[in-house]
Formats: sequence, C-alpha cells, structure tokens
Amino acid sequence: MGGELEKRGPLGSLFDITAEDSYFGMDSWEQAESEMSRISVNMLLKKASLGEKDVDVLLGGDLLNQCTATGFAANSLPVPFLGLYNACATAAEALLLGASLVSGGHAEKAVAAVSSHFCSSERQFRFPLEYGSQRPPYSQNTVTGAGAFLLEQSGAVRVTRALIGKVTEKGITDANNMGAAMAPAAAQTLISFFELTGERPTNYDAVVTGDLGREGSALLAKLLESGGIGVKGALCDCGMLIYDAERQEVNAGGSGCGCSACVMATYFWQKLCKKEIRRMLFVGTGALLSPRTVMQKQVIPCIAHLVELESL
Amino acid sequence: MGGELEKRGPLGSLFDITAEDSYFGMDSWEQAESEMSRISVNMLLKKASLGEKDVDVLLGGDLLNQCTATGFAANSLPVPFLGLYNACATAAEALLLGASLVSGGHAEKAVAAVSSHFCSSERQFRFPLEYGSQRPPYSQNTVTGAGAFLLEQSGAVRVTRALIGKVTEKGITDANNMGAAMAPAAAQTLISFFELTGERPTNYDAVVTGDLGREGSALLAKLLESGGIGVKGALCDCGMLIYDAERQEVNAGGSGCGCSACVMATYFWQKLCKKEIRRMLFVGTGALLSPRTVMQKQVIPCIAHLVELESL
Repeated sequence: MGGELEKRGPLGSLFDITAEDSYFGMDSWEQAESEMSRISVNMLLKKASLGEKDVDVLLGGDLLNQCTATGFAANSLPVPFLGLYNACATAAEALLLGASLVSGGHAEKAVAAVSSHFCSSERQFRFPLEYGSQRPPYSQNTVTGAGAFLLEQSGAVRVTRALIGKVTEKGITDANNMGAAMAPAAAQTLISFFELTGERPTNYDAVVTGDLGREGSALLAKLLESGGIGVKGALCDCGMLIYDAERQEVNAGGSGCGCSACVMATYFWQKLCKKEIRRMLFVGTGALLSPRTVMQKQVIPCIAHLVELESL
Repeated sequence: MGGELEKRGPLGSLFDITAEDSYFGMDSWEQAESEMSRISVNMLLKKASLGEKDVDVLLGGDLLNQCTATGFAANSLPVPFLGLYNACATAAEALLLGASLVSGGHAEKAVAAVSSHFCSSERQFRFPLEYGSQRPPYSQNTVTGAGAFLLEQSGAVRVTRALIGKVTEKGITDANNMGAAMAPAAAQTLISFFELTGERPTNYDAVVTGDLGREGSALLAKLLESGGIGVKGALCDCGMLIYDAERQEVNAGGSGCGCSACVMATYFWQKLCKKEIRRMLFVGTGALLSPRTVMQKQVIPCIAHLVELESL
C-alpha cells in the first residue's frame, strides 16, 4: 500500500492499493497508518488464500512512539504478535526473524508487516505539518506505505541467509542527515557478510539498501571501496527507487519503515518472481534515535540487517 | 539492577547492583536507563565468563520512545542487535525469541535484556516529575530496573515451551488502569495454553504474571475462574512481589519492562536454581498504548506472552 506521493512515483503502478487521502478514511494520521498496516496484512492473507487462524505469528513494527501503528493493527488481527523496533531496518528485522522462526520449526506461517506514514512521522519526529517547515536537501522524505510478507517453507522466493547488524555510529548528530548516519552501519554489515561468506557484490544481481537516500548511498559506495570492495553499479537504494527525485520534491529520497517494505514487496518481489533477479542482498538500515536523544545532543546510533534472497 | 525504591523493597538484597542515584552517574534519566541496560548485559557476560564477541544476538527493548534505552546500550555493546517492543511484555518476548533462535540453531548464545526507569517513563508517559502529580490507587509504579538473561543450549534452567500472545482489549481507555486493561490478555493466553497443552495451574509450582499489579491480578483470577480454571493461591505477580505495598507508596504495585525482568532475574531465577521451583509459567503482559493514542481516546490494546520454565 502507498500514499499519494508514492502513487505518482516510478513504482506507483506496482502497488496493490494507493490512496489520495492520507487519512485512509480514519480520524487521525496515526489511525490511518494502523489501517494501512491492517489492510496490507489482510490483503496478503487474501492473496495467499489464508485465514487469520492460519497465521502462527505476525512480526512487525513502525516508527510511531510505542509502535502503536502495528500494535493497533494487531488488535484488529487476532493472530499471535511480536512487536519489533529497529527504526527503518524493521522490515529486514521482521523478514529475518520470521524466516528464522519458520526454518527453526517454531512457526509454519509467519507474516512480516511494516509501515510508516509521512504525516504521523513528521509531526512526531519534527514539527506539526501545518508549519510547512523546510528541510535541508540531504534530508529524506518519510514514505507513506505499508508492506507485508508471508514466510513459509514453500514459495517462489527463499530467504537463504541473514546477518543481524551491530549498532554503530560515526559522530553524526544532525537528525536531518540520516543517510550519512546510517551509511557506516550498512558498510559494516556488508563488509562483515562478504568476509564471513567469501561472497562479493558481483555474485548478486542486486545489492539493495533501504533507505540511505542519495547522500547515504554515495557515502556507502565510498566506504565499501575504501574497504576494498568494488561496487561499481552494483548498489541501489529503496529510498532512491520509490520517488523520482527530478520530478518529486523529496530531497535526498525516501525513508521510513514503509519505504523498504514497499519497494521490496513491489519492485524487487516482481523481479524475483520473474527471475529477472535470481540472487540479491537486501540491507535494511535504521537510525535508532528519538527526538529526545537529539535534544539531549546524543549521537545517532545506527544498525543494518542483511537478508539474502534467491528466486527458486 | 534496580533503583532506590527497588533496593528498599522485599527483593532488594537479591539485586546485583542497586543505586541510590536515579541518574546512575549520567546526565539524564534516559541515559541512566541506557546505562543500566548496558551494565546489566556486561555483568551477565562477566558472570558467564563470556566476551562480547561470544554473543550471537542481543534481543531487547524498553518503554522509551523509539526504544532508545536499549538502542543506545547496544551502541556501546558491539553485538548483533534485534530491537523488540511489546511494552511490559518485552521481557517475555525477548526470552521466547532468544530461546527460539537458540533451539532453531540460529544462535549459540543469545542475550535477552530489558529495562525501565520510573523517571524517564513518568515524564514521557505522564507529567514532568517536578509537578509531583498524584495518581489513582489502581495505578502502577514504573520500576527502575534492568535484567539480562543468557540463553544457550546448556544451563540450570530451561525454556521448555512458549506461547506468543494475541492482542486483545475489553474497552478500557483509562491509561492509569493498566492492570484492568492487561488482565484479559493474560487470561486469554493462559486459557489458550491450558487448552492447547492439557496442562492445569496445579501442574506448576508457580504461575507468574508480570505486571498486573493488585487490581489486575484480582481481575485475572476472576477471569480464569469464570473460564473454569481454578487458580486458588496459584497465581502471583511480579508487580506485587517487587514492592511492599504496606510500607512503600506504589499504589497497585510495580510495572514497566524492567519489573518482570528484575523479578525473574532475582527471585524466580534463584528459586529455579535451588529447585524450590521446578516448573513455572511466566506470563509477561504489555499495554500497547502511547500518550497519543490515549489523547485520541483510543482503547488500550494489550498482549501477554507465556514462557514455560523448568529447573534441570
């Protein structure tokens, strides 16, 4: 599911549902986000011809304080629920944990569901929307969107391996500069993965980050190259795919839990199903700050989880 | 680890560290909570003669917006990190997920770490502490405390089974009345568990909730009895064990992520190790509200996760 801006972006036609109305028929943006989350899970179950009773566990989260978008969605979905929070890395976290529970025999069917909403995020993390405040060109635009994934033993796409990230930071304290804050976490996770496995970027049809934006992506390429990992043309970023930076006013690109969830569930899911991509790495990146830690002049701890996907 | 009030409570002597200073040497209560979390994990590793490199994954969370207490603790602990949020049920969530990752072969050593802090919670969820606002007798007192658990294949205590809870609510909208809001979730999870397994409360040396407080515990007993499950004397609650309600001004008892973590890591851990308790159920309960959902007059969705523990 996506909002109006996402509908008008390059991936707009790939969404199952997009809405012009940022309230999605609800009374507040927070409830709207929760409604998106609920609908995306229900639509997933419908596509898979499953009922709520068939779901062993729902794993998910969002950016709202106390993760209420997903908590309230879970309240209207009577399935076992595990709430997660790793900021914009939550989609990758939910995918890898869901896959682990299925492969470990603890669940037959797990659903990973993640959402974000521009309006609920903006007023929570920054300023009331009515201020119309301007943001610097290196800032990112929170995606209004929700994505849900079904994890089970069979399927067209397999989660083959995953690497849980370690938190890191390199001194960035500007909360508008998430790309620069998160790039070192993505670099650390990718370098660890390549070292541990002996793989290299050219072994994959795509190495996808979510969501570094324009600034962060350029930094990541530099960090990897200085680590001896050639990535010419191999990297792409969900935050840069979801919008058309030339046509749309999104500064450095998209961000938010829902960004990588939507791009993975539309663009990359279709490419994997059509076998246009046979093997890919998805690296979800998250900035673990809060408005209070920013006011207290703390650094921005960041994390990146890696998920390896193959089409079957 | 615990704070001053916890030190003076009935379990005070069982804590590894208690501090009179609610700042734990830091500049803010939020940083103090993060410091508690970091110290509790480091102390756990020291007790187990492990280094940070030996930990395959740290699972945990707290009540702060964007779970920053744990996120910042993870920033000073270079171990793979998965952030969780299920409000005061996060300790149970971390235990069951950590045990699942170990039993599924995805991690050899997992650490579950959870914290809460009275002062950081009070100003985030309620009012600035300086107001000295009064709260109703059925409200609960957020515990200042942190607990950490090591999950691995060997050990004196085993997680034998777990049941992930479903979100539920029965119309409670008073954010001071968490016990009443959460009791139906605890009842639902316990009734499901007894139905699914054929077990009954008398098969266990203890059936422990965390944290319903006085009001919620009384409600849970009624709900179970009306569901045909006799629980006379079988139930106890972490929120009622951590303080002395006669001597300490804590209204209906303790709450907060750290409450059940501390009571499980002190009182019940020792009883399990000494085999004074051989089999027990731990039911972590969480209220998935935020100050904003309360202001928007939403209900309080609640969850309860069950963990079955046995001494070996």
